Amino acid sequence: MSLSAAAIVSALEGLLGPAGVIGAPERMGAFLNEPRRRFHRTAAAVAVPPDRAAVQAVMRWAHENRVAIVPQGGNTGLVGAQVPARGDEVILSLARLDEIRSLDAGAGVMVAEAGVILENAHKAAEAAGAMFPLWLASQGSARIGGVLSSNAGGVNVLAYGNARELTMGVEAVLADGRLYNGLTALKKDNTGYDLKDLLVGAEGTLGVITAASLKLFPLPRDYETALVNLDSPDMALALLRLLRQRAGARLNAFELIPRIGLDIQLRHGMLDADPSAGLAPWYGLVEISRMEGTAPGTLAEILEAAFEAGLLTDAVIAESLADRTRMWAFREQMSECQSREGASIKHDVSVPVAAIPALISEGNAAAEKLVPGIRPVPFGHMGDGNIHFNFSMPAGADPQAFMARHDEQLHAAIYEVVLRHGGSVSAEHGIGQLKVELLKQVKDPVALEMMRAIKAALDPRGILNPGKMLG
Amino acid sequence: MSLSAAAIVSALEGLLGPAGVIGAPERMGAFLNEPRRRFHRTAAAVAVPPDRAAVQAVMRWAHENRVAIVPQGGNTGLVGAQVPARGDEVILSLARLDEIRSLDAGAGVMVAEAGVILENAHKAAEAAGAMFPLWLASQGSARIGGVLSSNAGGVNVLAYGNARELTMGVEAVLADGRLYNGLTALKKDNTGYDLKDLLVGAEGTLGVITAASLKLFPLPRDYETALVNLDSPDMALALLRLLRQRAGARLNAFELIPRIGLDIQLRHGMLDADPSAGLAPWYGLVEISRMEGTAPGTLAEILEAAFEAGLLTDAVIAESLADRTRMWAFREQMSECQSREGASIKHDVSVPVAAIPALISEGNAAAEKLVPGIRPVPFGHMGDGNIHFNFSMPAGADPQAFMARHDEQLHAAIYEVVLRHGGSVSAEHGIGQLKVELLKQVKDPVALEMMRAIKAALDPRGILNPGKMLG
Repeated sequence: MSLSAAAIVSALEGLLGPAGVIGAPERMGAFLNEPRRRFHRTAAAVAVPPDRAAVQAVMRWAHENRVAIVPQGGNTGLVGAQVPARGDEVILSLARLDEIRSLDAGAGVMVAEAGVILENAHKAAEAAGAMFPLWLASQGSARIGGVLSSNAGGVNVLAYGNARELTMGVEAVLADGRLYNGLTALKKDNTGYDLKDLLVGAEGTLGVITAASLKLFPLPRDYETALVNLDSPDMALALLRLLRQRAGARLNAFELIPRIGLDIQLRHGMLDADPSAGLAPWYGLVEISRMEGTAPGTLAEILEAAFEAGLLTDAVIAESLADRTRMWAFREQMSECQSREGASIKHDVSVPVAAIPALISEGNAAAEKLVPGIRPVPFGHMGDGNIHFNFSMPAGADPQAFMARHDEQLHAAIYEVVLRHGGSVSAEHGIGQLKVELLKQVKDPVALEMMRAIKAALDPRGILNPGKMLG
Repeated sequence: MSLSAAAIVSALEGLLGPAGVIGAPERMGAFLNEPRRRFHRTAAAVAVPPDRAAVQAVMRWAHENRVAIVPQGGNTGLVGAQVPARGDEVILSLARLDEIRSLDAGAGVMVAEAGVILENAHKAAEAAGAMFPLWLASQGSARIGGVLSSNAGGVNVLAYGNARELTMGVEAVLADGRLYNGLTALKKDNTGYDLKDLLVGAEGTLGVITAASLKLFPLPRDYETALVNLDSPDMALALLRLLRQRAGARLNAFELIPRIGLDIQLRHGMLDADPSAGLAPWYGLVEISRMEGTAPGTLAEILEAAFEAGLLTDAVIAESLADRTRMWAFREQMSECQSREGASIKHDVSVPVAAIPALISEGNAAAEKLVPGIRPVPFGHMGDGNIHFNFSMPAGADPQAFMARHDEQLHAAIYEVVLRHGGSVSAEHGIGQLKVELLKQVKDPVALEMMRAIKAALDPRGILNPGKMLG
């Protein structure tokens, strides 16, 4: 026997006061409308608790009354994990837990609450002379709790890892309101199972992260950034190997971008100037960090050696902050620029790094066979095998007809190539609602059984984010 | 109703043939005697399956018959996780699963079976021009399965992380014989809970790791290594910060060693020459890597700046492989050298890096108060907050009386200081049998409840390594 929406709002108001609850659907827009507008369920209510104790109170009540809870941060996720799947859930917004509890740049640790906006975490670290190296397109609104729950990646995973590797410990409220206090600032701690990494990336299905201790790094003195011209993904792979060999852990980023991305951005006036050394089939955006006291010029030396070895055809090294900003804008506008050219079908996939050339050539061939004239726009994180394998509709096609006819079949074709190369059908965006059925088809069945057993052990009433990840 | 030892041996022989089973206690020595000779239970049998399928067969049988299984690698663990706790268990040795299934230096991945000896993994990587950067004193006998199950650390955690961070995926046999196939070689994969990190560090209580995909790195061209003289741990901390600021991710190691360590090693002829620049209260062994094409001399420049800033009093930079080897021998003999001076009481602890000076001064004071004349020998991984906080008995004391009177009370005193600074009572060695009771006292109770729930979910009959970690 489940509670009515009115009873839910009334109970939550009792716990949080009227200011802590939104019951009117017309006031829920900011919490319901996710970036791609794919999911359209309403919620019974939105709860916005002011602190950790109130989060515990909400979860105790939800557990007792078997009310489903959808934890939410900045509502920037791309797979619908942070919005309702059924319509009778309570959205639990962590937005008001937005304190940075402590920050010690020398010790390399910041304790941030779940509601802290990622960009504010960056600013706080930089004001103290340190760096929290997780950069996302959505960092102006993404919040730490969601960043961790989705194990977000971004452009510097190559050097610093995903959100998981950047987190030392978490604090979380469990399904029944108990508080797990794992806010350690230790780099080494072998006292039990790795609960931190279980909660990170669990999309709010195992607990509600309320705070985290995050790793800070010394700010580099500078970056050396270049946009290089490449003939093929094979050439990019060879260049990546040379860069790793010679720059080691200084290599921050290696992003691969196809020529069509530059064409589109120039055509639509999205760049104030061409950041490249001229037309080429592929571009590589490479960056290394330079620490205080280290002489500049390493990247130029490596690229010169690469040119002599035939691993690139031309290159521009950024000579100013404006150059660097333009190169990164070129990369960061890759997703947006596709919308200027009509409909597109997207895949966030990864393969072992060495398989990227095969992934791209086989994926492109499969797509062209299905949809003659389709325009492949594969780009992304060459350094960690994560390609945003996107396709724009053929020039002049009808967007709706393109999506209706080809969305499903193109997914199937691309995932077939990905899985054949030992890859993942969700490299960084997660499962949420969008890929629940896909996960059932492609994941190791024993892994799914283990996941379900863990879910049942930690959330026996199934109230935490039902319908997400495991369905 | 449990099976007799004879019935167990007979059943295992049916599964593995007589060559795969050891039933005679007098032939079990190598499997029962662990390095510190603290645990003295026998086993019902030792099973040595030849391959993964045979491991599955043993687990299926054990699950059906509720026979307890103790997974074992190289039997080098220091907390008794890999030897029986009761006497009726079957030791499941992974030693025969010793194949390196694949190795791709360019792609940076090696798939090694659980029985591969760590040193052989090093050699295989190096033969292919790559590096698997996990170095332990026991690497000549430790095996990959045990290295992962204990989430081993070592001297390069600062740059490369623990075993957990060096593992991309694992394959494991579950309690009932099912095979979890998580042998991914992906750097990014957000398709579900982080089962890999749950199995790594679980000390064989959640599954039996049979293989792992491990990260390989490009071999540095060279290392720059120095032994620096320091006045205090505070000075070491300030030097560590400068090194991180200027060498960034090139900093491989920062090991702290007290003067008494050098005194003991020179007194007992354990070093062919003094590796230091002369007497000092503390030494720091620091090392940075130098990639191909990078000019040498970075460490010398940084140490010069440190000297001018008053962050060290003197230093020797290794000028030959012999120098470097001697410096590392000095560090690696720190544990062994204590045995030349009678009994010692040891603690493998960590605190946030910034708290190391307070840990050492407060810990030393507490120990001296309990045992006047006790000789503190705190040394270890300054860079990741992990100090092996050891104490040698007062010169000339009676070893047995020292241990009998002070072992327990010294543990209590040191752990009190560690916990007050937000530290861990087991930084890298784990829990095993040794620290089960301690864990119950000091761990967050909700964390223990979560661990027990996960254990019950994945091993409902409690046959995997009973009595370990959770008791």
